[in-house]
Amino acid sequence: MKRAEYPEAIRALIAELKRMPGIGPRSAERIALWMVGARNARAGEIARAIAAVDEGVRPCSECGFFTAESRCAICEDSGRSREVLCVVEQATDILPLERTGAYSGQYHALGGRISPLDHIGPDDLRINPLLERLREGSYSEVILALGADVEGEATASYLAELLGPFPVQITRIAQGLPAGGGLEHADELTLNRALSGRVKWER
Amino acid sequence: MKRAEYPEAIRALIAELKRMPGIGPRSAERIALWMVGARNARAGEIARAIAAVDEGVRPCSECGFFTAESRCAICEDSGRSREVLCVVEQATDILPLERTGAYSGQYHALGGRISPLDHIGPDDLRINPLLERLREGSYSEVILALGADVEGEATASYLAELLGPFPVQITRIAQGLPAGGGLEHADELTLNRALSGRVKWER
Repeated sequence: MKRAEYPEAIRALIAELKRMPGIGPRSAERIALWMVGARNARAGEIARAIAAVDEGVRPCSECGFFTAESRCAICEDSGRSREVLCVVEQATDILPLERTGAYSGQYHALGGRISPLDHIGPDDLRINPLLERLREGSYSEVILALGADVEGEATASYLAELLGPFPVQITRIAQGLPAGGGLEHADELTLNRALSGRVKWER
Repeated sequence: MKRAEYPEAIRALIAELKRMPGIGPRSAERIALWMVGARNARAGEIARAIAAVDEGVRPCSECGFFTAESRCAICEDSGRSREVLCVVEQATDILPLERTGAYSGQYHALGGRISPLDHIGPDDLRINPLLERLREGSYSEVILALGADVEGEATASYLAELLGPFPVQITRIAQGLPAGGGLEHADELTLNRALSGRVKWER
């Protein structure tokens, strides 16, 4: 007697699902079995939705955000300011900023950050297209909205130096206590930055 | 200015992914963005794996387990006993039992359990095919491996009565303390069943 296993198609699906972020072997099995479940016909729709994204979505030629066209909805929006350019690491960083409702300028996704340990240097990032946009546009400010970790810092320093010759103000997003976070939960470096970045109380 | 959103294809994918069990809005967004990520080409493969399962996997005509053929690998395995039949609620209950390595007979998945609250009665389950297998086969024992909850109990009682006329021994899997569980974690009902189901110590 052979110990029974799932049919090959299900095992292949579990193996694929396990690659998804945050999905362990148990979740993958649970999702796969849910997909073969008789009482729902979602599997085909999910497969189609994935294929549609896989084939139809690409990076915006200008900012790097996701789009089904050549240029994305943000770059096409004539109601947005063309004087401020916000530089982020990943295209996925754009919507969180958008959702704050505090920004109405342009974006530029680098596609990563400088990280020698991962063999990612300046040449692997969309830095030349950034310089080109600055040359051709009429920007007055570039906001560096990069991560507050070592790689983010290194990338910000590199860019700040590179952008020096351009007639634009260079700013970076603030670092400090996260909203809702008490001092007792903040690490030393966060407190250090919160202190040194203190701003005058307006009254 | 319009607050930016993901392209329609990505939003549709997130909506589909959210339907999967254990996947919330955040995970769905994370997975969808991972799928459009430039550095992997997994999305197409996942879509194909889902479609393959969707089109190729069906319930075994005999026991209800998953198969790509008409009959599953368990029912086709000539090395397994045809004298014992283990009745489970769902096809997904079969592999957990298989993995114990303690069983080498046949299975029968009912496709659910009697649950008036969910409008599931005996007629909605694969009970007639079960009776037919018992009539045509040469089984000597039917193991009821149903859940230890109210619906599982009700289904077991119903089946036990229905199977009364058949010349087979009817057994049910034991209820009691889960492995590794101390008495202090067990609820009253579990302890009650563990006590009343006590077995003689073999020495």
